[in-house]
Amino acid sequence: MDPVRIIEIKESVFADNDAEAERIRGELKKEKTFLLNLMSSPGSGKTTTLLKTVEQLKDRLRIGIMEADIDSAVDAQIMAGTGVRTIQLHTGGMCHLDAGMTEQGLKELGTDDLDLAILENVGNLVCPAEFDTGAVKNAMILSVPEGHDKPLKYPLIFTVCDVLLINKIDVLPYFDFDMEKVIESAHMRNPALKIFPVSAKTGEGIEAWTEWLYQAVAEWKGEN
Amino acid sequence: MDPVRIIEIKESVFADNDAEAERIRGELKKEKTFLLNLMSSPGSGKTTTLLKTVEQLKDRLRIGIMEADIDSAVDAQIMAGTGVRTIQLHTGGMCHLDAGMTEQGLKELGTDDLDLAILENVGNLVCPAEFDTGAVKNAMILSVPEGHDKPLKYPLIFTVCDVLLINKIDVLPYFDFDMEKVIESAHMRNPALKIFPVSAKTGEGIEAWTEWLYQAVAEWKGEN
Repeated sequence: MDPVRIIEIKESVFADNDAEAERIRGELKKEKTFLLNLMSSPGSGKTTTLLKTVEQLKDRLRIGIMEADIDSAVDAQIMAGTGVRTIQLHTGGMCHLDAGMTEQGLKELGTDDLDLAILENVGNLVCPAEFDTGAVKNAMILSVPEGHDKPLKYPLIFTVCDVLLINKIDVLPYFDFDMEKVIESAHMRNPALKIFPVSAKTGEGIEAWTEWLYQAVAEWKGEN
Repeated sequence: MDPVRIIEIKESVFADNDAEAERIRGELKKEKTFLLNLMSSPGSGKTTTLLKTVEQLKDRLRIGIMEADIDSAVDAQIMAGTGVRTIQLHTGGMCHLDAGMTEQGLKELGTDDLDLAILENVGNLVCPAEFDTGAVKNAMILSVPEGHDKPLKYPLIFTVCDVLLINKIDVLPYFDFDMEKVIESAHMRNPALKIFPVSAKTGEGIEAWTEWLYQAVAEWKGEN
């Protein structure tokens, strides 16, 4: 296996991040490429969930992955094992990606032959939520061991996301995690939030999520 | 139980955070108050670990707690149940506390009659590590479900911390977590890092950690 390409991305120079994000979405629309921005805490299972997502969809969609981390290429090496085009973005200590930083990644990845580009954002529930990356949809993962109080403590990320994956449901018996309470408080933050309980480890619930994603990509490409 | 006092802290006005942090430490030294800065990801068990820590030490030390969150007073309400003086700091969306922000909290808490003040920082492995709060020691929690690759992905926080608590060891059988590997890679980042495997839920390992903390407080107060 070839070593994964590591891109050192630079701080963004654009004053108006929202305008830049809209411009990126406009270009992706022309290319018929869907960009998903995936956010979560460190260790909630973003990479394992992505692996399962790619397994389910790689025969039906042309997929490219950008793994963003402050350091290391651990995740990109794992993802590259799936055979989909993968690059590692290093943020140089920055805790999030904005639109300009995302665009540097998209250019390095190459998107004109992709149906679906996925950005695995830096593990953090705070800063990534503050920046529109230019993604068509935002998804977040909350894992069972993190606890059901997170929509109360980290309101913004639940507000800006379209989809919430509640991961690691295979360990529900070992944690005091109130599924009804988390769904209720997440919907209080964002009534339109789509919620999928999943286990990336066992595969439970993954198909419902990947079907939703497949439909969202098809809509973006104008096929529905 | 009285409602917990919530303090809205303001962005810091100090240009030189490190100098400000040194000044705070100097004042704490005069007061013989030890400040511990506790950091981790969201959901790693900071509050439960603090509860056990306070239970172990509250008869031997006069303790005060500052719970920092972007929103909610969930943690402060839980902590206040221990009977120790507790205030909730709201960061107004900010992902960390710097020295100036911490000092606002210390003033509201009142420290001259305390042996040990504990700041539970915002749940985040990135930004809090970048700011010296004025604490005498920095501690972090990594929980088993987060995975053993975190010292590779979030290098700075492992470098700036004096203590690493590896929490939720009660669920080790249900996760692929390599304890030797995490200890090795954490020590690669920081050879002096003290590491305590604990379960805040069952209490396992908590005494070793609280004894270390008790000794550190005694040293700071000049009793050793």
